Amino acid sequence: MITFIQLIRNGENEMKTINGNICAPQGFLATGVYAGIRKNPKKLDLCVIYSQIPAVAAGVSTLNQAKAAPVILTQKHLKQGLLQAIVVNSGNANACTGKLGMQHAKQMAVTAAQELQIATNKVAVASTGVIGVNLPIEKITKGIRAAILKLSLNGDAAAQAILTTDTYEKSIAIEIQLAGKTVRIGGIAKGSGMIHPNMATMLGFITTDVAITQPALQHALSLINQITFNMITVDGDSSTNDMVIVLANGAAKNKKINCIEQADFQIFFDALLFVCTHLAKQIVKDGEGATKLIEVQVHGAITMRDAQLAARAVCRSPLVKTAIFGEDANWGRIASAVGASGATLDPDRLCIDLCGFQLLKYGKPLFFEEDCVLELLKQNSVSIKINLGIGAAHATAWGCDLTYDYVKINASYRS
Amino acid sequence: MITFIQLIRNGENEMKTINGNICAPQGFLATGVYAGIRKNPKKLDLCVIYSQIPAVAAGVSTLNQAKAAPVILTQKHLKQGLLQAIVVNSGNANACTGKLGMQHAKQMAVTAAQELQIATNKVAVASTGVIGVNLPIEKITKGIRAAILKLSLNGDAAAQAILTTDTYEKSIAIEIQLAGKTVRIGGIAKGSGMIHPNMATMLGFITTDVAITQPALQHALSLINQITFNMITVDGDSSTNDMVIVLANGAAKNKKINCIEQADFQIFFDALLFVCTHLAKQIVKDGEGATKLIEVQVHGAITMRDAQLAARAVCRSPLVKTAIFGEDANWGRIASAVGASGATLDPDRLCIDLCGFQLLKYGKPLFFEEDCVLELLKQNSVSIKINLGIGAAHATAWGCDLTYDYVKINASYRS
Repeated sequence: MITFIQLIRNGENEMKTINGNICAPQGFLATGVYAGIRKNPKKLDLCVIYSQIPAVAAGVSTLNQAKAAPVILTQKHLKQGLLQAIVVNSGNANACTGKLGMQHAKQMAVTAAQELQIATNKVAVASTGVIGVNLPIEKITKGIRAAILKLSLNGDAAAQAILTTDTYEKSIAIEIQLAGKTVRIGGIAKGSGMIHPNMATMLGFITTDVAITQPALQHALSLINQITFNMITVDGDSSTNDMVIVLANGAAKNKKINCIEQADFQIFFDALLFVCTHLAKQIVKDGEGATKLIEVQVHGAITMRDAQLAARAVCRSPLVKTAIFGEDANWGRIASAVGASGATLDPDRLCIDLCGFQLLKYGKPLFFEEDCVLELLKQNSVSIKINLGIGAAHATAWGCDLTYDYVKINASYRS
Repeated sequence: MITFIQLIRNGENEMKTINGNICAPQGFLATGVYAGIRKNPKKLDLCVIYSQIPAVAAGVSTLNQAKAAPVILTQKHLKQGLLQAIVVNSGNANACTGKLGMQHAKQMAVTAAQELQIATNKVAVASTGVIGVNLPIEKITKGIRAAILKLSLNGDAAAQAILTTDTYEKSIAIEIQLAGKTVRIGGIAKGSGMIHPNMATMLGFITTDVAITQPALQHALSLINQITFNMITVDGDSSTNDMVIVLANGAAKNKKINCIEQADFQIFFDALLFVCTHLAKQIVKDGEGATKLIEVQVHGAITMRDAQLAARAVCRSPLVKTAIFGEDANWGRIASAVGASGATLDPDRLCIDLCGFQLLKYGKPLFFEEDCVLELLKQNSVSIKINLGIGAAHATAWGCDLTYDYVKINASYRS
């Protein structure tokens, strides 16, 4: 039996990226339109992704107990394992909207299914935006019809239409070879606010033409999610709405992957991991108000869970985040966040590096040239390495700094 | 056997407040001096509190695994149940300072013990300020000697000397009657940054002249801590350093309280609860950069733990905190924070009131006049009431808004 640790050992491999995103794999069409949900008509707000043949589908979604209606509906549709379309609106989350919200989510699926002439349970629905406001359902159904008429290879419009306070599109496409067959994977994502572990507090839609069974695809996504989307945090708030869906339509005609022991599974797993890592990091880089990406690596933990707890706690700490924004080598806040994380810890074994400088060694502060560290803290990516010194497990988490603009964006988001 | 729930039923009782703070009870002296730890000579930075007779002592301290040296030392001294002095410095936390840090903490206790001619283990030590920098121990021992020469009824100077980024002193004194004897309780506290549940992420020093056994005093403090200091949050970071200590010297000569079934225990318990609630709320009101106090009451939870989880999650959510700062009735973020809190929840039973207006009823958004709510959101205290509608347990948490000034203070704290 191949273990999780063995599977993820290749996580750092470089991949061949190609142009495009979700329409790069064979057999996928997409588009984004302005349906009138958002105030600004320059912001696309409705996206449709379509596979010309039914695709094996895997998904992970928020653990928030106040799940939005579209999340509940999509979880239901995912159960039969095949999807052919994904409909997404931005500008309104359709969350905390009671029974009417569920009716609206269904109406979105029904409308798309009718226009595409497919079964309603082959349509996934996702929404993102303000919570607790009823959807403008007429505008949305009209938008869905308009979008479906415009379906094309235009993945960029789809990538735009799912954004909220994001400042740029997140997308990627890569190509791998599986026993002589070319397989592609493309993905788009949105993030920005409410980004925090516990699946996935963001939206991600990934398409691939690989031939794979549903259990193998779900297995790959569930594992990868734990070390990518669940390891990013912008503000520690887990959203009501978020999900990642992978559609695999088999158009690449590779020998179908059906077992995780296969060499092809490992190759595909590495590729999907690369795509998800890329999207996850893009999301935190574009965190609300963020000026810096923070990467926190924890080594020497007793268990992987401990390593993850510590890494996420540091990424989440407002005091660490503001210190990084202020370009202040205040490593004591890092030590404090690790101490409060719940991870097993021996303070006398703890080592902390900031931007490559060792500041704490076996629990003892080291002298360091503030100016040298300061120079590196000015860069737009900051590395924190923590060694707990008591085990062999490790984990990486990504976050961003906490800035005036985060407060500004969120003090006025709804208005 | 009296239960916790029965004990806390009187928590809302008003008490007779009197002038002064920790020197209001008989037999206590205190002072604060400038020892040269902080840069600004106008900021007192060293405090000594002294009981003229040995006092029964109870304490609670941080659960952060990277405990500061003074916390470890004080926990040790508390074990023998009696204290006579507390020495506190601000400006430097003596945390993550290795073996030298522990030597310094001991030196603080030894110096005070020598000057006061008491046993070293009768001295508690506390520090607060920047983490990971060695204490300027010569300045501190000199400061301790100077402070002890100046011991008086000047509790205000003591209250000032424990502050860091706090903008005002937190203190209170009250008076109760126990079978014809007048008993007083006084307290001072500091807070501001790193304020979050899990004991106690702040400093609090409480004096009383009540006669009580150590187990009864510890019992009262441990219970009260759970519903006061552990229910406040400024930024979700649990500190390395924080503690609350109560000294009870028996000078009031009431019949000694030795059992929680006694009527006198309940009266004293109510009084101590009042003092701790007052100090806890003062701390969040003065949270770094805060402009508004947020009180979150959760009712209808299945267990008290669930109620506490939900109340604290709402207080801690950066998205709720920025919305309150922006005076935006964005109740969807409250629902989302409750959903992500881990408390058992039925979204269709959830009700949310903001400033007295019901905005969500049994999971359904209600129409409300934005202008009326907006008017109330402009006040410096905001009330959020959440009913989970599935049980009988309740809890209250207190927090503050997240503002530009929080970012400003923390992006430049160390420099």
